[in-house]
Amino acid sequence: MALAAALRVPARFLLRAGSRLQGAALGLTERAAGGGDGARRFGSQRVLVEPDAVPGVAVMRLNNPPVNRLSLEFLTELVISLEKLENDKSFRGVIMTSDCPGVFSAGLDLKEMCGRSPAHYAEYWKAVQELWLRFYQSSLVLVTAINGACPAGGCLIALTSDHRVLADNPKYSIGLNETLLGIVAPFWFKDTLVNTIGHRAAERALQLGLLFPPAQALQVGIVDQVVPEEQVQSVALSAIAQWMAIPEHARQLTKAMMRKATASRLITHRDEDVQNFVSFISRDSIQKSLQLYLERLKQRKG
Amino acid sequence: MALAAALRVPARFLLRAGSRLQGAALGLTERAAGGGDGARRFGSQRVLVEPDAVPGVAVMRLNNPPVNRLSLEFLTELVISLEKLENDKSFRGVIMTSDCPGVFSAGLDLKEMCGRSPAHYAEYWKAVQELWLRFYQSSLVLVTAINGACPAGGCLIALTSDHRVLADNPKYSIGLNETLLGIVAPFWFKDTLVNTIGHRAAERALQLGLLFPPAQALQVGIVDQVVPEEQVQSVALSAIAQWMAIPEHARQLTKAMMRKATASRLITHRDEDVQNFVSFISRDSIQKSLQLYLERLKQRKG
Amino acid sequence: MALAAALRVPARFLLRAGSRLQGAALGLTERAAGGGDGARRFGSQRVLVEPDAVPGVAVMRLNNPPVNRLSLEFLTELVISLEKLENDKSFRGVIMTSDCPGVFSAGLDLKEMCGRSPAHYAEYWKAVQELWLRFYQSSLVLVTAINGACPAGGCLIALTSDHRVLADNPKYSIGLNETLLGIVAPFWFKDTLVNTIGHRAAERALQLGLLFPPAQALQVGIVDQVVPEEQVQSVALSAIAQWMAIPEHARQLTKAMMRKATASRLITHRDEDVQNFVSFISRDSIQKSLQLYLERLKQRKG
Repeated sequence: MALAAALRVPARFLLRAGSRLQGAALGLTERAAGGGDGARRFGSQRVLVEPDAVPGVAVMRLNNPPVNRLSLEFLTELVISLEKLENDKSFRGVIMTSDCPGVFSAGLDLKEMCGRSPAHYAEYWKAVQELWLRFYQSSLVLVTAINGACPAGGCLIALTSDHRVLADNPKYSIGLNETLLGIVAPFWFKDTLVNTIGHRAAERALQLGLLFPPAQALQVGIVDQVVPEEQVQSVALSAIAQWMAIPEHARQLTKAMMRKATASRLITHRDEDVQNFVSFISRDSIQKSLQLYLERLKQRKG
Repeated sequence: MALAAALRVPARFLLRAGSRLQGAALGLTERAAGGGDGARRFGSQRVLVEPDAVPGVAVMRLNNPPVNRLSLEFLTELVISLEKLENDKSFRGVIMTSDCPGVFSAGLDLKEMCGRSPAHYAEYWKAVQELWLRFYQSSLVLVTAINGACPAGGCLIALTSDHRVLADNPKYSIGLNETLLGIVAPFWFKDTLVNTIGHRAAERALQLGLLFPPAQALQVGIVDQVVPEEQVQSVALSAIAQWMAIPEHARQLTKAMMRKATASRLITHRDEDVQNFVSFISRDSIQKSLQLYLERLKQRKG
Repeated sequence: MALAAALRVPARFLLRAGSRLQGAALGLTERAAGGGDGARRFGSQRVLVEPDAVPGVAVMRLNNPPVNRLSLEFLTELVISLEKLENDKSFRGVIMTSDCPGVFSAGLDLKEMCGRSPAHYAEYWKAVQELWLRFYQSSLVLVTAINGACPAGGCLIALTSDHRVLADNPKYSIGLNETLLGIVAPFWFKDTLVNTIGHRAAERALQLGLLFPPAQALQVGIVDQVVPEEQVQSVALSAIAQWMAIPEHARQLTKAMMRKATASRLITHRDEDVQNFVSFISRDSIQKSLQLYLERLKQRKG
């Protein structure tokens, strides 16, 4: 991701984003505490993985309070959790959902991009790339049960899945809204969106930083289904059953064929993409605006 | 096409496919026998070609009972018939339709892929490639009047045409359902589908092996029109008239421009694609499951 | 653009095109004369540029009577006007509209392609390329207020913009109708259309030379909004305000990312594309049919 000209970002965008994410953090501890019910787990503290009652299906709950920010640690745990599931022959499908009420994931963690060393920026960006490469190319069936706001990096995770079910709540919008924060989605975020909604809709959505509320999200095709909030999990389960009924090897080879060219573009330009990110994020002007933004967020929470 | 893991194909898919195709074979001889009405013909026994009353239009009837399976001989006759029409200056457009009631074409012929030599598999696969390359790049206007079920290779033929009219019969579904049989559509089947319905819809349709019934087929864009069954031919004729009214050379050059990149991908990787097919189809596991499938089909017919 | 086989163009297409464009020329002088109202201008006589009341927005009025034919001079003035706006930091967005009643732009000027030297043809074609490259890659927000018929080269200009608003008048159709005149849109016209409406819709539209009336234009996605004729300017202004509210640098980088691959294709093959055009247009058969066409147009006006 190239961060750009953040000093010129209108304050209203910063504040609006802050207030949405803060509100979403309420009530989290209660839910997270309720997770110790003895079910088999082999995720981490931040990524809760449980087998579903349906054979072959695992549920992966994103649990990095308050808003599932994609910190370096969280990214790493997500990748490791998926890898474990891929290596466990008892699972063929994964439903990804959030344990943070009101937010699926708030996206990349700006704290990882601010006041750190170039080596840290490079390490962080490699982890973002790794997440996308692993999830987008997973041999498992991935279905996202989107039960909260789904901006930027959160939307990217959803876009890597095979099927997206969004809860019908006007607060749960989804999209790659990087430009609203003065930053630019990298080419592989863009490629994933173009594959999903087409070139023209992606051009418009990316430039305007559109966050689609449920009805619009369905219409433009960034999600496959919009259902009442209490049905998100059950509909996701029905969907994954349809995908898992397909002969496994044939489905996997077909998925790989569909996504290979897009994944290869990043693999080929991976180092270059890291260098671009590091040199961009290290600029004084970008660092200043990220600091300003983070301080404002902190003040609102204090 | 890569055949994959067919041993894991659920039996219900095999049986369902068999019953559909068997039912479609009824009443064929009668129709084929009625073709000797003195009209000018220059197709073969399996590919009946007649000039339409509309000048410049030929009708090509697929007549390889019971279900227009694309055997090596049938593929060859289809290509030769199209070549003859392209070389005959009195024709500028072709309507393709089926003479086998209830089925447009059941697709590739598994008998060509089972218990034969590697040389035979290579010859067969080259013929499938040739069919696609010739029809997809034909300078003629091709319109398909889809008057029956149109799975897999049948759908591929329809996708090579310039305009698709589907009869509104719930039994006439269309799609690339290879995964349901445990096999994988090759990349050029995939490219043709992506060009027609877009990347996301193709990703979903190919992985799930979707066969779209008429209303859904129209909505996703895999066909251009859905009309009452008795109007398929007349609507196809109206459509071809619109295409043939365009200045010929300009239309041909525009068509070539639109399709060149897609065709070139196969042309460039043609030998590699044949080798992939032969090495895959020759595997013991694949041969065993094809034999099993063919024996079941035979038992149901016996 | 490759001109092809124009001698085989049905006369009805030539005459119909002529009558539409002739009618559009009425009343032009009056409007053009009314432009001397003291507003700041820094376009040319043919390209009227005025700052809008909204800060940062310029309005560019195409004013090459009678039908905004894209002559060499007009193309050059359009490019220079855009360049001036890009270099003037007080502007971030441009609304393009027509001052010729009933016609946005009739497209390329056949007089530049007929009875001239190969050097002239090359110069003209380079100017067409330059227009597209500049407008398609402009860092400014471009919105088209399409207040008249918008065929061929006129449509190309509209397709370079970020947002298209079409007046709801059945006479104002839009499309790349080159085939109807026996000619072929070049690959970069095609690429721009595919990016906008997708591969299948573009294949159909380009081969059939479709001119979409407003409702169809909206449905296929070649325009973004259709509004009552008297509201075209105000709606275009609302739209540009939405685009200009986005942090500037991030929006520009995102736009460049979306369009780079398409623009690069022409940049890489620019000379080859000029040579193709010159060799094609210089053919005796093409020159004869262009002369015939221009003489008929002249007779109808006389």
